[in-house]
Amino acid sequence: MPAKIPLEKVPGFQVAAVKTGIKPSGTLDFGMIVAPDGATAAGVFSKNRILSPAVTISKRHLNQTKGQTRAVLVNSGNANCCTGQEGRDNARASAKQIADLIGSEAREVLLCSTGVIGQQLDMTKLLPGITAAHAQLGDKPRAGQFGRAILTTDLVEKNASTRVILGKKSAVISGVAKGSGMIAPNMATMLAFVLTDAAVSAAVLRHALRAACDETFNCLTIDTDCSTNDTVLLLASGSAGGTPIREASGKRYEVFAAGVYEVCLALAEQIARDGEGATKLVRVQVTGARSKKDARRAARSIAESPLVKTAMFGNDPNWGRILMALGKSGAMVQEAKTIVRLCGTEIFREGTPLPFDAKVLSKKMQKKEVILEVDLGLKDGACQFLTCDYSYDYIRINAEYTT
Amino acid sequence: MPAKIPLEKVPGFQVAAVKTGIKPSGTLDFGMIVAPDGATAAGVFSKNRILSPAVTISKRHLNQTKGQTRAVLVNSGNANCCTGQEGRDNARASAKQIADLIGSEAREVLLCSTGVIGQQLDMTKLLPGITAAHAQLGDKPRAGQFGRAILTTDLVEKNASTRVILGKKSAVISGVAKGSGMIAPNMATMLAFVLTDAAVSAAVLRHALRAACDETFNCLTIDTDCSTNDTVLLLASGSAGGTPIREASGKRYEVFAAGVYEVCLALAEQIARDGEGATKLVRVQVTGARSKKDARRAARSIAESPLVKTAMFGNDPNWGRILMALGKSGAMVQEAKTIVRLCGTEIFREGTPLPFDAKVLSKKMQKKEVILEVDLGLKDGACQFLTCDYSYDYIRINAEYTT
Repeated sequence: MPAKIPLEKVPGFQVAAVKTGIKPSGTLDFGMIVAPDGATAAGVFSKNRILSPAVTISKRHLNQTKGQTRAVLVNSGNANCCTGQEGRDNARASAKQIADLIGSEAREVLLCSTGVIGQQLDMTKLLPGITAAHAQLGDKPRAGQFGRAILTTDLVEKNASTRVILGKKSAVISGVAKGSGMIAPNMATMLAFVLTDAAVSAAVLRHALRAACDETFNCLTIDTDCSTNDTVLLLASGSAGGTPIREASGKRYEVFAAGVYEVCLALAEQIARDGEGATKLVRVQVTGARSKKDARRAARSIAESPLVKTAMFGNDPNWGRILMALGKSGAMVQEAKTIVRLCGTEIFREGTPLPFDAKVLSKKMQKKEVILEVDLGLKDGACQFLTCDYSYDYIRINAEYTT
Repeated sequence: MPAKIPLEKVPGFQVAAVKTGIKPSGTLDFGMIVAPDGATAAGVFSKNRILSPAVTISKRHLNQTKGQTRAVLVNSGNANCCTGQEGRDNARASAKQIADLIGSEAREVLLCSTGVIGQQLDMTKLLPGITAAHAQLGDKPRAGQFGRAILTTDLVEKNASTRVILGKKSAVISGVAKGSGMIAPNMATMLAFVLTDAAVSAAVLRHALRAACDETFNCLTIDTDCSTNDTVLLLASGSAGGTPIREASGKRYEVFAAGVYEVCLALAEQIARDGEGATKLVRVQVTGARSKKDARRAARSIAESPLVKTAMFGNDPNWGRILMALGKSGAMVQEAKTIVRLCGTEIFREGTPLPFDAKVLSKKMQKKEVILEVDLGLKDGACQFLTCDYSYDYIRINAEYTT
């Protein structure tokens, strides 16, 4: 990946971040992205049936405008979820406030909230925050501020960027993300924002974003829990010029989609590494499955298994658990055709355990990244799932909320 | 429940337990049940695609005999799973040995194994163990020996019994179980054996057992992981006399099925209480669901959520996590109709969080048993799922396997 291009430097966008006071810690807790000349936009949202009004309103706005947007507002410290009519009214008031300030319609505003579930937003803090962030938009942006403003209990910022050549034009794709679990007291978690100055129609953005999410954020599991606020947004300003990409095919599309995928994958990996209590990134790679769907099922089942994840924490080459998780996945598995490798060491082949030096293998597992490969030996379905290990700190972080 | 009737006292069966030396600890590790005059039998087995030959052979034998059996062999300390052709041969040799000793056919023998995955059974220990257990069959059985012989790392024995009146006859239903997770290095886990002296056809046994399992062992989750060896067997000797129950309907069937359910539920509760690292039993009770299936989905999702389970460990009235787990379950949920109660305290009603004293509620949660109720307010689908909390000890037990 080339030199990092921060979100704040993507042409066609203005980015601001302020402290509203919603977060008790008093740190940055509100971020704003404005596209003065408008942008095309696409979103992928949580499939949870309990949704924050931020999610339902953003989905509705994208539908109403057919993917045209002017602004994105993100607050951290409060998820504005399970907050009833008052919560819906507050979300709408936020959108209206920025729309009035920038002279757009409310439906051209997208909203994200992350933080505690079940508490009302303090609008006496949020509305002045929106005004303050808007006032800051003309200033020279400080790189990384937005990425920090959206964090809750993440330990590190997550960002990634790339540069792509689309015909005769060069474009930037730059993203930030947050999320490390659903954290005490009850955080509503994963957000990602990817900006590009490429010129791309909203329909094509949707296509590229869905494809990328499918292989990255949707192949990522920290603790199996899917939040009420998860949102990934991709916005394109078109400032790079050139004829807009209007078809989800052809060379320019392929290059653009590959760039979006690259950025999303890098962000997903950073989320897995920063999973609650994580000591390592675990890549579960399934090949030879009967179908792509089966490969995903198998990889997900292994990546979600608490017994596999505790074994990874304990550096325990405990392959019986991997086979158990594989077998319960629902994917077609034939023991006599299955091969399992842990950190490159083959430990099970076609129905038979292979001898290995457990001490040597355990030592190999003591790394920041562990690869767990399963070849089902059936057809060519393949999938990589990203996860982390389960440690004492996962329990500490999630159990020790002092009421 | 009336005075306990141990498995060893059910008329029509002989029960033995011995030490074969397969368990390194040198404790009881082999149990045998023989029905000298035969018994009808039914089984419910793991749906994992990786199965021990003990499971595949038992399923085949039950099919071949249409549910007639003479003996059940159970070894603990070794799951005989992922052991290839040698593992299959060893399982068959065990069945043949007891069949020869009692003068039955091998297909009248059922097998269960529990313990480490991926190691071959030491037949120089198992075969003499079978002979020794058979020799013990005439002796006065010692209550509880069989229940202890099937344990792996369970902390406590699990047993339950009841007495039912079937027309003019009284019959006993008595069961034992083992299981507390899939334990380091890699245990293959849940087994239960229920014996009755009632006279019941194999088809009716199947019906009663499936119905009971559906609401008990299949509504039980410790860590979402389903083992390769899970088996529940129900055997009926008919020694109580009377006309056999041949229809899965009518008063006698209802009473019998209720007795089987009662015993299975008590065993399932004991397993949840003894879950790895568990400090409490958690009952997730969902009502008002659109359907029975939806109720089960919702209850299971809450019971499996690591964030709900860590909150239960931390005595944290963290209702946002309950709604998150509910929303991601796939069950139909309308926030505006949903009611959530924790330890009897209503904390969320129809879209709105209710005020409650977090300290008082946290104190209420510091019990050996916690009830978490969700009323979806839609139709009359209901389900109870049993689980336990997630504690530091879960991580310790499953990560600290010294290689």
